[in-house]
Amino acid sequence: MWSELAALSGVVAAVAHARQTSSNTATREFGPTMMFTDGKPTQRGFASAMIVDQKFVVKIPDGMAPEQAAPLLCAGVTVYSPLNHFGLKQSGLRGGILGLGGVGHMGVKIAKAMGHHVTVISSSDRKREEALDHLGADDYLVSSDAARIQEAADSLDYIIDTIPVNHPLEPYLSLLKIDGKLILMGVINTPLQFVSPMVMLGRKSITGSFIGNMNELEEMLEFCKDKNLSSTIETVKMDYINAAFERLEKNDVRYRFVVDVAGSTLRTVKHRWL
Amino acid sequence: MWSELAALSGVVAAVAHARQTSSNTATREFGPTMMFTDGKPTQRGFASAMIVDQKFVVKIPDGMAPEQAAPLLCAGVTVYSPLNHFGLKQSGLRGGILGLGGVGHMGVKIAKAMGHHVTVISSSDRKREEALDHLGADDYLVSSDAARIQEAADSLDYIIDTIPVNHPLEPYLSLLKIDGKLILMGVINTPLQFVSPMVMLGRKSITGSFIGNMNELEEMLEFCKDKNLSSTIETVKMDYINAAFERLEKNDVRYRFVVDVAGSTLRTVKHRWL
Repeated sequence: MWSELAALSGVVAAVAHARQTSSNTATREFGPTMMFTDGKPTQRGFASAMIVDQKFVVKIPDGMAPEQAAPLLCAGVTVYSPLNHFGLKQSGLRGGILGLGGVGHMGVKIAKAMGHHVTVISSSDRKREEALDHLGADDYLVSSDAARIQEAADSLDYIIDTIPVNHPLEPYLSLLKIDGKLILMGVINTPLQFVSPMVMLGRKSITGSFIGNMNELEEMLEFCKDKNLSSTIETVKMDYINAAFERLEKNDVRYRFVVDVAGSTLRTVKHRWL
Repeated sequence: MWSELAALSGVVAAVAHARQTSSNTATREFGPTMMFTDGKPTQRGFASAMIVDQKFVVKIPDGMAPEQAAPLLCAGVTVYSPLNHFGLKQSGLRGGILGLGGVGHMGVKIAKAMGHHVTVISSSDRKREEALDHLGADDYLVSSDAARIQEAADSLDYIIDTIPVNHPLEPYLSLLKIDGKLILMGVINTPLQFVSPMVMLGRKSITGSFIGNMNELEEMLEFCKDKNLSSTIETVKMDYINAAFERLEKNDVRYRFVVDVAGSTLRTVKHRWL
């Protein structure tokens, strides 16, 4: 839920700015620097305009629609950054995407575009068709299917773990090859657990990543344009925002809302930070 | 305790072989391949002779005493391998050694010889003088000293965590810089815990390592010879082995026993695997 909300707010900023400036750029919050709207901090809010140092402005490639750029600036770079940083961009790797939501679905698309063999791991069979037929994943594992998990042991170079609630790590560590990486993306405030031999034997790593840096943002947008990748989104107007939040609570979006704030009367919006 | 026992058995093999062959070589157990003594598996035991494929035989540098080579083949490579693998050999890095025992003391020596700034982190002040004055560490932190731990936040490139019992990871994750690595060496069979933002923010890694590969064994021995490094050991004869085990249980060794089995009547030894 947290990641969806973060996306929603970050995304709005990008779309708002892209719509309202003649140059095709978008801005987003990044690092410890605050962003300001009308001289006040945005507090991750819905802005009609904003002033930032140009080093925090990303060029959107020609021809990329703003409503596409927006979710890529969150979910896209969140996946692209660790693959880039950890040397996992070359083709032929075998990756796992744990959880198929806003970040996970971009994980499948980006990893496939890099030439990886992609396994989606999910808690039920419900998203199998979506993963294999619509998103192009190569394999699908249900995390409770101990026999299939066992068969797939030591087979993955990395797992992008997008699960935003507490979950056991050991079944997924077992899927990793030697030197494999479990890359956490979910901000979870209860402790995750593992026993040390699960990382020592095989020199596996539990790591994590949070959005990405400015260079990666630009690289990722170019990569998505070159590979003709898009995020699967539902674009809504500002007057739909409370309904969008209600649907987010029910996980009822495939996969991201993008809020087009152009022409909205922003001050009337009821803020609901969950 | 586990690591000390493993060292003891591995070490004996190395010393035994080095003493009894004209070539200055040592052998050790490695990977899934079994080693044999008189045609039977050693079961990590005390061997007077052994037959192994030569790819599992390590050349001991000229002039290195067998009783020195022996502990380096366990504690030495256990530290050297992850520093090598994770690109942490260059001078100027800031490292932490968590726990000052058989592996930890070699960690301080090897990291210092690589030109690192080395902080020993321990549960009490008891080993401060030993760490700073005898082993040459640069700094000493008591893990319960929250103020000093807080001051040292975001300061270390890596921590070699040799603690063999369950312990919190978060105080040590907080000491790491961006991209810092917490490298576990202790086989702990109860779950370790952390919250995901502690690795996501700063892209830190929790990883681990187990001994090292054959190339690293030879590199490490050459490195120790070049840098004139030795392990701090107490050499005992085989008839002292049960007393040695009893002292190990009380943590009463500085820092490794090396058992010289030459001339021993091996079959009379009472095996005590704890």
